[in-house]
Amino acid sequence: MGMTMSQKILADKAGLSQVAAGELIYADVDMVLGNDITTPVAIREYEAYHCGEVFNKDKISIVLDHFTPSKDIKAAELCATCRDFANKNNIEHFYDVGTMGIEHALLPEQGIVAAGELIVGADSHTCTYGALGAFSTGFGSTDMAAAMATGKCWFKVPAAIKFELTGKPREWVSGKDIILYIIGKIGVDGALYKSMEFTGEGIRYLSMDDRFTIANMAIEAGAKNGIFPVDESTQAYMKDRVKRPYRVYSADLDAIYDKTYTIDLSAIEPTVAFPHLPENARPAKDATDIKIDQVIIGSCTNGRFSDLAIAAAILKNRRVAKNVRTIIIPATQQIYLDAMKAGYLETFIKAGCAVSTPTCGPCLGGHMGIMAAGERTVATTNRNFIGRMGHVASEVYLASPAVAAASAVRGSICTPDLL
Amino acid sequence: MGMTMSQKILADKAGLSQVAAGELIYADVDMVLGNDITTPVAIREYEAYHCGEVFNKDKISIVLDHFTPSKDIKAAELCATCRDFANKNNIEHFYDVGTMGIEHALLPEQGIVAAGELIVGADSHTCTYGALGAFSTGFGSTDMAAAMATGKCWFKVPAAIKFELTGKPREWVSGKDIILYIIGKIGVDGALYKSMEFTGEGIRYLSMDDRFTIANMAIEAGAKNGIFPVDESTQAYMKDRVKRPYRVYSADLDAIYDKTYTIDLSAIEPTVAFPHLPENARPAKDATDIKIDQVIIGSCTNGRFSDLAIAAAILKNRRVAKNVRTIIIPATQQIYLDAMKAGYLETFIKAGCAVSTPTCGPCLGGHMGIMAAGERTVATTNRNFIGRMGHVASEVYLASPAVAAASAVRGSICTPDLL
Repeated sequence: MGMTMSQKILADKAGLSQVAAGELIYADVDMVLGNDITTPVAIREYEAYHCGEVFNKDKISIVLDHFTPSKDIKAAELCATCRDFANKNNIEHFYDVGTMGIEHALLPEQGIVAAGELIVGADSHTCTYGALGAFSTGFGSTDMAAAMATGKCWFKVPAAIKFELTGKPREWVSGKDIILYIIGKIGVDGALYKSMEFTGEGIRYLSMDDRFTIANMAIEAGAKNGIFPVDESTQAYMKDRVKRPYRVYSADLDAIYDKTYTIDLSAIEPTVAFPHLPENARPAKDATDIKIDQVIIGSCTNGRFSDLAIAAAILKNRRVAKNVRTIIIPATQQIYLDAMKAGYLETFIKAGCAVSTPTCGPCLGGHMGIMAAGERTVATTNRNFIGRMGHVASEVYLASPAVAAASAVRGSICTPDLL
Repeated sequence: MGMTMSQKILADKAGLSQVAAGELIYADVDMVLGNDITTPVAIREYEAYHCGEVFNKDKISIVLDHFTPSKDIKAAELCATCRDFANKNNIEHFYDVGTMGIEHALLPEQGIVAAGELIVGADSHTCTYGALGAFSTGFGSTDMAAAMATGKCWFKVPAAIKFELTGKPREWVSGKDIILYIIGKIGVDGALYKSMEFTGEGIRYLSMDDRFTIANMAIEAGAKNGIFPVDESTQAYMKDRVKRPYRVYSADLDAIYDKTYTIDLSAIEPTVAFPHLPENARPAKDATDIKIDQVIIGSCTNGRFSDLAIAAAILKNRRVAKNVRTIIIPATQQIYLDAMKAGYLETFIKAGCAVSTPTCGPCLGGHMGIMAAGERTVATTNRNFIGRMGHVASEVYLASPAVAAASAVRGSICTPDLL
């Protein structure tokens, strides 16, 4: 019986020649990830059971990215717990303030995750690495404790939905518009516990950053994971980053999918997801009456170099609207440096933006741009749930960096071609 | 009877030919300042008394710098209160996220304060502008409400202490070392409700940034204000910034001082103030056994261009020590831009530092580097009170940017020449 790309990775990692949707398997993981919020809970469980040494100090990543640089004493205590554990266990991939970046941008950038690997992380957006052709998924902190001790994890093998991407995206249409369009089509439970397997000739028009954004938001359709085939772009991305052999998987020709959607990329417009669900997707041009108070360009979804490049192209020689706080958050130190060298940070400052050190910050209501009652933010982040970025009476509109930057200039939701 | 420089400004602003220490006067103010913490309280009082229009929309500055970009909902609500008031009253000098800088670096930079002016601010470090030869002092939020309504303020005319600065500072000795040394000598109540009037030929060796640092910390000796004579450096600083006439005052030759201290600048060493008072000053070289967890370079005391230049010179081609989070906070957007153009920000990132958007943040335990129990920070800020930067069991060591940067590299308190 044919297997999907995701199933083939899981089968191999479980030492099985065949797995089927719904089956429970016990598989070796290649990387265990946690952050400053989820890792302390894992450490508590880990130490409560006297787990001793970690299964492999090189296969654990701890990234202090959520409430850092520490926003308060509680955040500082969480970081201290992680730091002590990382030092005691000599964790290879420990990232603190100064080297830290947003985990899901950092791990691919540093070559810590690669095609064909099985990656688990105590953060729901761990699904991001599917862009590289890896099986990666989020899990809980107690799972993280067990995985750090054993290097193994239980999985229920997911069924899959195939997304056949065709056509070439229009100008100003990016991975973010595509995934918002798809979630708008299938809903926030449209892929519940399933793999979203992306295929089709349209993929060649998608940069790796586009793919990271799409895979990142698979969880927003309820998916277990999102995954892309490995092509020349993927290999080029990994070439200088991944220093170990990796394996390229592809779905069997007779793989079973619960459903297949054909997505014509050329038909997708710049898209905005209205409050309070990512599925509330609408063309941005139909939302230009929405006045805004703040713009956030950053996060594990859209804080990468090409995201900043697009925003800079739009903000160049322009000013953000009065009373629109615009906060740019490069996702990693390397992206910060590259954006600085490319002149983007200068463009942002001259346009009247604040440029933050890397942090997840505002995306989850942590810090660095929290909203008061009645305020609205256009954000390149991934969730617009009630109260996600501050007061329960505030609103988040999800959009691409292009739409976010144009909206900052206009003071209301806008696409670049309307400026 | 001769008057001090401070008294002469107060007399003029009160329309009097003569004032004496201890006298109560009612004077016109040239600038009323508030920030995101203190202004909302002022606004509440202002509106409770139906004060109507502000006395002069061009003579009020509101700077959202303390808990911004908003660290939580409460901070966002405080900012929203300020923003609404500023918009409603068409406040000329309103600085929000994106244009905002730390108030006491921003106002001089933008030419909003000048020599001979009487400046009041609902922030204790308003005394900073004494570096320009202005009388400037902190007051409370209700005073701010009254000043916004009337443009006037009551003062008890301060007595004065004269600080005669002689000699040339050694290498690596800056304004910060000088003021820490002085506070170490006279104590945190050594100048209680008095003017600290700086004079002497040593002043010519002090850059404007040195003088801002010294005047900034006058309050840490309990002073009502600190003040410097206006010389060529002061005039050069104001030349392109201040677009209006300003007046240069100097003390009468027979001015009365409660005390005179002669400070030989050439005898001062790089200095650190130990917890938990700024008066606990010791030579940095005698503190090299103090291991540290964090370094903060920034604040209204030491976040200016020359501060970053010194830090960059030390951090160039070096890395900060493992487990020392080093956070650099340019004080204003202009300083950020200038430091970026000078290559300093690149140096910082390559050295393993986080570079923050301008904010007061960690200095007052707001955000952007708060400490857990048992942690130690070397900070270029102005206060090291118990719990000032986080947990009550954390410690702050006050130092210059040079000492802070060297300490970041070494992982314990250090001077640049010991690296």
